[in-house]
Amino acid sequence: MDEMLREIKQASNKLIGLRQEMRKQALEIIANALDSKEILEANSLDLDRSKNLSSTMQDRLRLDSKRLRQMSKGVLNVRDLPDRLGRVLETRRLKSGLELEKRCVPLGVVGIIYEARPNVTSDAIALCIKSGNACVLKGGKEAFNSNKAIISVIKKALCEHGLDIIAKGIGFIEDCSREGTLALMKKREFIDVLIPRGGEGLIKSVIENASIPVIETGSGNCHIFVDKNADLTLAKKVIINAKTSRPSVCNSTEKLLIHQDIADRFLVDIVKDLLELKVELVVDFRAFSILEHGGIKNIELITSSDYKKEYLDYKLGIFIVDGIQTAIEHINAYSSHHSEAIITKDMVRAERFLNEVDSAVVYVNASTRFSDGEEFGLGAEMGISTQKLHARGPMGVDALSTYKYCIKGNGEIRL
Amino acid sequence: MDEMLREIKQASNKLIGLRQEMRKQALEIIANALDSKEILEANSLDLDRSKNLSSTMQDRLRLDSKRLRQMSKGVLNVRDLPDRLGRVLETRRLKSGLELEKRCVPLGVVGIIYEARPNVTSDAIALCIKSGNACVLKGGKEAFNSNKAIISVIKKALCEHGLDIIAKGIGFIEDCSREGTLALMKKREFIDVLIPRGGEGLIKSVIENASIPVIETGSGNCHIFVDKNADLTLAKKVIINAKTSRPSVCNSTEKLLIHQDIADRFLVDIVKDLLELKVELVVDFRAFSILEHGGIKNIELITSSDYKKEYLDYKLGIFIVDGIQTAIEHINAYSSHHSEAIITKDMVRAERFLNEVDSAVVYVNASTRFSDGEEFGLGAEMGISTQKLHARGPMGVDALSTYKYCIKGNGEIRL
Repeated sequence: MDEMLREIKQASNKLIGLRQEMRKQALEIIANALDSKEILEANSLDLDRSKNLSSTMQDRLRLDSKRLRQMSKGVLNVRDLPDRLGRVLETRRLKSGLELEKRCVPLGVVGIIYEARPNVTSDAIALCIKSGNACVLKGGKEAFNSNKAIISVIKKALCEHGLDIIAKGIGFIEDCSREGTLALMKKREFIDVLIPRGGEGLIKSVIENASIPVIETGSGNCHIFVDKNADLTLAKKVIINAKTSRPSVCNSTEKLLIHQDIADRFLVDIVKDLLELKVELVVDFRAFSILEHGGIKNIELITSSDYKKEYLDYKLGIFIVDGIQTAIEHINAYSSHHSEAIITKDMVRAERFLNEVDSAVVYVNASTRFSDGEEFGLGAEMGISTQKLHARGPMGVDALSTYKYCIKGNGEIRL
Repeated sequence: MDEMLREIKQASNKLIGLRQEMRKQALEIIANALDSKEILEANSLDLDRSKNLSSTMQDRLRLDSKRLRQMSKGVLNVRDLPDRLGRVLETRRLKSGLELEKRCVPLGVVGIIYEARPNVTSDAIALCIKSGNACVLKGGKEAFNSNKAIISVIKKALCEHGLDIIAKGIGFIEDCSREGTLALMKKREFIDVLIPRGGEGLIKSVIENASIPVIETGSGNCHIFVDKNADLTLAKKVIINAKTSRPSVCNSTEKLLIHQDIADRFLVDIVKDLLELKVELVVDFRAFSILEHGGIKNIELITSSDYKKEYLDYKLGIFIVDGIQTAIEHINAYSSHHSEAIITKDMVRAERFLNEVDSAVVYVNASTRFSDGEEFGLGAEMGISTQKLHARGPMGVDALSTYKYCIKGNGEIRL
């Protein structure tokens, strides 16, 4: 593994000076190459071996011509994103007389550890090429043959068009063992940043074991707080959208907090709507007793192990809170710091919520579902960062860059 | 420890909204409070216990009125730095109609793990208060009493002036055991970023054991490459400054690479000067043989274990390289990615060096000694980052901030 990683690291230094036109051309070549029988054949090998997986997992794994076309389209979208590589972010003359330039440069080598979906392979490669980075990909073992074929097809196409320099910057880890993955996470010498994309278990393992700097992504225990003076029609519309429009994604809402002053009026109402939409509800004591009075049965009490849980399903936790202070404290204590919303007509209280809620994206009177790269105008995203270092919230190509100080002098020395 | 960290985390949320004037006032109060007998008494306790330490270590540990005044001055310098907290970095209307604001906000809770120098305590507190962050400090056991007294004096003074809200955001870890430090590094729930300040061993331990995002700082195996067409008088001046003006700091140069075409002319010359300045030299085979021919004896061969070493002393490694390509490859392979310089009259080659050398600061015709916060106009620094995530090179108060997306809507939902 070290030999391969050393080569990728060396290749990454050659990518820095590459003209934008060449990177765009590479993405076009890749988009064309993805329509490949080789990939579909490799994918059917993976599918044959995955009979024991859940049907959801099997579906995530499956590729067909339509999905390959979507992957191509994704690559072309990345091609068309704005490019700030090499841009000078700042120029200054220091007091010593030195001329300082702060230049935008690629991160270098981006490591991506991901799970079953083979389309992440082409997405990640496209984002890395666009941003001038080399990449090292470690996919899930279920998709091993598909990933290998996608990368082989891409590298072959690049080399056929004389873009070996870019092909050399794409690395694939064939060792799918747990030990291999753990070893990879320690290769700080060769990899500049590690981005895990997948379920909670994967992300936790990377955070706990990596010595390479990590960007934590994707976990979304998102909250909506309905304040005492909320527009309740608006609140209902937003909650239903945030919970039910696509429950399997990280920006869907998992917990609802309701101000005690409006709980009597609002709770039964919204619960009836949610039950009709087949949303399973787990609620705190106060909500339970209001619902009982309202004649609603079959509701479970929420357990404390659920407070931090991301359901990714038609399931919602509900709490009645004393006020905005309690709501903010609850969110800061249990949220995954992805996205939260307040529904209120009072803009002073809205501002307080925006300031004090410690999450990447905070909304006033809107659904948490808007937290993604496409909606933010960033194009395809490398993930949604839930940590504060380097990038926060939806990460587009800019999040895959850093800066470097280039300083020109004329023999200056420090006294 | 958890209880204390939870309180610091809660305190950090209250600091976000604090006006600039209050933060400035706090720094003034701290600067005045540091002139304290309590601190000097505690320091003499530490000194009494440190008789077995080296004299350098004892000197680092020692406080007197003059050093306390320097610490006060440092705090006042931080007070006067520009402040970008709360600034709106970007406003945009998204295609959904939502109004997006990207706001500059503090990181939250900054953990600092450091070694013997007690002045780091007041520096770090000042930088964190200025940048709106809470902090958790874990100093070395040698300086335990001094650090405890500094923090106690600072917190007392803040509370006496009604600034309890700021005092609550300053945490001190009293457990100096190795287990305590390791446990602290895993408290991702309470600490947003960890900055180690100290020797190689400390930094390595933090990188390997922390699950909190880390900013690696301070290790400086810096190189100077003298190109074939360098101004050799200028080269000599820069090399001597970069090696001998203050060898114990991270921006001093540790390795010299000389283009083979000028080695015969330049090497003996620079080596004589360096030997006169009492610099110990270790050189590669080619340099060794040139020096032997030149009648210079008592020079050791460099061993490969030295390639990555930071001497922090009057010691320099010298290599003769085939050309700029080899120089760049050598630097990228063995450097700590802090600061490097090329000495050349050829600006095309200079530009290539700037582009391809993968370090935080890259110089043309100037000493590496300029890589620090003061020289960069950033004021006091929290360290010099040698990684690429979040901040690179000298880190001032801006490096202690992140951003947050605040989004206002009117009931928008995602279809």
